[in-house]
Amino acid sequence: MRLSKFHLATVKEVPADAEIVSHQLMLRAGMIRKLAAGLYTWSPLGLRVLRKVEAVVREEMNRAGAIEVLMPAVQPRELWEETGRWEKFGGQLLKMKDRKEAWYCFGPTHEEVVTDFARAELHSYKQLPLNFYQIQTKFRDEIRPRFGVMRAREFLMKDAYSFHLSAECLEREYWNMYNAYTRIFTRLELKFRPVQADAGAIGGSVTHEFHVLAESGEDAIAFSDGSDYAANVEKAEAMAPATGRTAPAAALERVATPTQRSIDEVSGFLGVAAAGCLKTILVRGNDGLVALCVRGDHEINEIKASKLAELPGEPVLADEAEIVKALGCKPGFIGPVGLPDSIPVIVDRDAAVLADFVCGGNQDGSHYRGANWLRDARLSRVEDLRKVVDGDASPDGKGQIRLARGIEVGHVFQLGTKYAEALNASVIDQSGKSQVLAMGCYGIGVSRIVAAAIEQNFDAAGIVWPEPMAPWRVVLCLINPKNDTNVAAVADALYADLQARGVDVALDDRGLRAGGMFADMELIGIPHRVVVSERGVAAGTFEYRARRDSESRQLSRDEVLALFA
Amino acid sequence: MRLSKFHLATVKEVPADAEIVSHQLMLRAGMIRKLAAGLYTWSPLGLRVLRKVEAVVREEMNRAGAIEVLMPAVQPRELWEETGRWEKFGGQLLKMKDRKEAWYCFGPTHEEVVTDFARAELHSYKQLPLNFYQIQTKFRDEIRPRFGVMRAREFLMKDAYSFHLSAECLEREYWNMYNAYTRIFTRLELKFRPVQADAGAIGGSVTHEFHVLAESGEDAIAFSDGSDYAANVEKAEAMAPATGRTAPAAALERVATPTQRSIDEVSGFLGVAAAGCLKTILVRGNDGLVALCVRGDHEINEIKASKLAELPGEPVLADEAEIVKALGCKPGFIGPVGLPDSIPVIVDRDAAVLADFVCGGNQDGSHYRGANWLRDARLSRVEDLRKVVDGDASPDGKGQIRLARGIEVGHVFQLGTKYAEALNASVIDQSGKSQVLAMGCYGIGVSRIVAAAIEQNFDAAGIVWPEPMAPWRVVLCLINPKNDTNVAAVADALYADLQARGVDVALDDRGLRAGGMFADMELIGIPHRVVVSERGVAAGTFEYRARRDSESRQLSRDEVLALFA
Repeated sequence: MRLSKFHLATVKEVPADAEIVSHQLMLRAGMIRKLAAGLYTWSPLGLRVLRKVEAVVREEMNRAGAIEVLMPAVQPRELWEETGRWEKFGGQLLKMKDRKEAWYCFGPTHEEVVTDFARAELHSYKQLPLNFYQIQTKFRDEIRPRFGVMRAREFLMKDAYSFHLSAECLEREYWNMYNAYTRIFTRLELKFRPVQADAGAIGGSVTHEFHVLAESGEDAIAFSDGSDYAANVEKAEAMAPATGRTAPAAALERVATPTQRSIDEVSGFLGVAAAGCLKTILVRGNDGLVALCVRGDHEINEIKASKLAELPGEPVLADEAEIVKALGCKPGFIGPVGLPDSIPVIVDRDAAVLADFVCGGNQDGSHYRGANWLRDARLSRVEDLRKVVDGDASPDGKGQIRLARGIEVGHVFQLGTKYAEALNASVIDQSGKSQVLAMGCYGIGVSRIVAAAIEQNFDAAGIVWPEPMAPWRVVLCLINPKNDTNVAAVADALYADLQARGVDVALDDRGLRAGGMFADMELIGIPHRVVVSERGVAAGTFEYRARRDSESRQLSRDEVLALFA
Repeated sequence: MRLSKFHLATVKEVPADAEIVSHQLMLRAGMIRKLAAGLYTWSPLGLRVLRKVEAVVREEMNRAGAIEVLMPAVQPRELWEETGRWEKFGGQLLKMKDRKEAWYCFGPTHEEVVTDFARAELHSYKQLPLNFYQIQTKFRDEIRPRFGVMRAREFLMKDAYSFHLSAECLEREYWNMYNAYTRIFTRLELKFRPVQADAGAIGGSVTHEFHVLAESGEDAIAFSDGSDYAANVEKAEAMAPATGRTAPAAALERVATPTQRSIDEVSGFLGVAAAGCLKTILVRGNDGLVALCVRGDHEINEIKASKLAELPGEPVLADEAEIVKALGCKPGFIGPVGLPDSIPVIVDRDAAVLADFVCGGNQDGSHYRGANWLRDARLSRVEDLRKVVDGDASPDGKGQIRLARGIEVGHVFQLGTKYAEALNASVIDQSGKSQVLAMGCYGIGVSRIVAAAIEQNFDAAGIVWPEPMAPWRVVLCLINPKNDTNVAAVADALYADLQARGVDVALDDRGLRAGGMFADMELIGIPHRVVVSERGVAAGTFEYRARRDSESRQLSRDEVLALFA
């Protein structure tokens, strides 16, 4: 590509709402331009990168045996009502009415449509297994679209859906996809981790997320420093402590804590470490209030709590009026000692081994010291209730947990029969019986990958693309000659030679001065830069510099060609 | 592709609402499946064809110097209000409200968005000319979606928009695009015609449509048998007759036509050819009624009539009450003799040279014979008002007009400054002054091309793809051996050899019987079929048949390879 015939439009000013580096750099490089909240036009430069990511995803999906299809973006309400998601999906579902007053949505995902396709197309076990995928525009009406294409409303997604006769077959395809995803992110030269995850609203049991590791990531990831264990913090198990509860040594004693409510305040006031205090919260259960207890230095993991049989879903804190009514005290003074029998007390594994601990006194302005389970306080059940912390034992028994931030770029699910049952998608099996299909689903955020890659690959001058997704692998910078020499002809010939060898090369023939040209090429992150200048042509050399290097070097023409062989 | 790993699902029954052959064959071949009215999923087979068309379009757009971008499908109302099209676009515009109650539409076209992009990105004449294109999903809420993907609501379109400083530069790019379109449809091996067209609602002046010629086409096309002149019948000029009006010979005579109203009835009743009768209609003008006259054997061209200064737009017939009030007679008896002076009489070129003609008597049950212009009837102005007919002189003076049916698959427009003015998109020109951009726009219906190609390429057995858009160029049909021979190994080796040579080949290893396999491959239209059978392997030959041929022949392995070299 000759850049004089391209549209390159780097910019100096970046809007104040561009909070993260990828958003700032994509705007400065002119890769995207905002149309409206969460809606972006991909400029010619941006699209080159997006298409390179798309091509790698497509190649690896094909290699893994998935078959590409293309489903409509606009989906009829009736289908979403069959699975109950027309209402359940919530505000992210963009709904619309056509000229005949029929309701549709802009597809945020395609489980309904693909299962409808499958129930029409698939009749016999002989057609299975199958994995259909598409690379297609989705829309999710985010409450707070932000971070540019990282959390846009309209975005490009690769979504795949596999169909099977048995759970075993589904599991084989699940790992096939897991491996394909690993190849995709490896080929894109990203630092990533597949992590165990919670299935959430999509449903299903076994599931992994693929995270690109970056400080700006919205997810917290726990991984082991002694194995390949990794999990979303939402999901990561906090193991039971190695040693059990010690016998009570202190007597139970009520102490005045007139204004001390938080763990920090109580711990400081009483001179007891937070790890020696108990944090108790009251939440609304299916059948009255429920007490959840974790150690003072730990935090409740809401996803884990949401799975307790006593809770209807995500935990909702009891409000002050409910607490006053139940206990006669305000929040901040709650503890398990003397709680009414009607309130189950569910205690985290680490909190359950505390002895002689501090906890709320269930009276305003009062706590207990020297409290002990069983002797002083009822303990209904021990559960894993907390978020893991740095230094925890890894659940696989190897090494310690470390924490990192991640950007979710892929997700694989074993859905099982959830959607196939709702939509009655079945085939005749080997024995002639009708059998509901087992399904997997596998998503990749194609446009998000572009932003995530930048979060891992930038410096003060701009983006530093991994080669497989760079807009061009190499740029020839033609420095306008002062004299009537053949510099342009030399550049043209080298450009033609590289193109003939299949090298993805750009020729910067825009006539800019060297400083501006180099700044642009560094900002947009081209991995290799070759300068064609009057002095170089006279000396028979080209100044070469890799984007990741700080020094340039002089190469002969043959050396330049050899570099990209 | 091994078809055992693919999803091929040909069907026998076709829904009764599939009226045209491409719709029927796309359903029978299992290329598409209906999700809802005007919404189709492209199956793996259908998508292969769609992608091939897309690839040719992209290659030729790139070759022509256009630059690919990707704009959002979802577009904010505010932008459409700047051009006035939020209301004017009509019912085809699918509108929706997001969770914040802001209005958007699903883009049916992108003039607004691309002009908004241009006004933000373009500042100087130095950046021009530019031509941005995308290949992207559009939605138009057709009143009556039909013919499968031919007139679907959601469809794949290539839309391009060029920006220029001058009308001359725009015109150069217009013809550049015209030539690119010609290359695209030529490469796709379609029988097509670029035809002059009416600009319609998109706006602009010079415009051509590209039509694939097919009986089922919704458009009528006029072309010359003696030159390359071609125009949409909407637009085609009917030339003035070579000879002028002859002098009146007959006297004006009122004759009774008690129940004869239509030209056919009057002409038969009076024994005068339809070409000797005058057809007069009254339409609503800007300022009272207007009479339009054409020869009895001709028809009013509504697009031409809509451009008369006296009319507000598309002609609307006066109703019976209006006619009775103005003339005292009912429709069917209207003529120019004795019409009130307030009614302009606008006469088609051919009608204006009639002499001694029959026309309505402006009294119920009465016509005139022997009527003549000027002597008997007022004639306000002569205009080209009629549709061309077979045998008309070609407007370029070369040959005669012939009529054909066409499917519009492409359209190029010189928009001029219409959108740039509305959105205030301007750049600084060479002299430092701000200048509004001139624009062109250029569309191709990518998904429609697939259906249009079938309308031109089918036989009783199914689709007969042009090679450049066939799902595979060649299929190897592996006939299951009865004995334990190496037929499968021979097929595998030939398959691998062809693949290694870059041939787009499928191996039908589904284990079907020969009849079913051949029927499938003919239905889905694979251009070349090579049979690998026990008998052939024993004889060292392969049965080869081209889809367009009726006979097969035996080829050696080398001959097979040479065929696809």
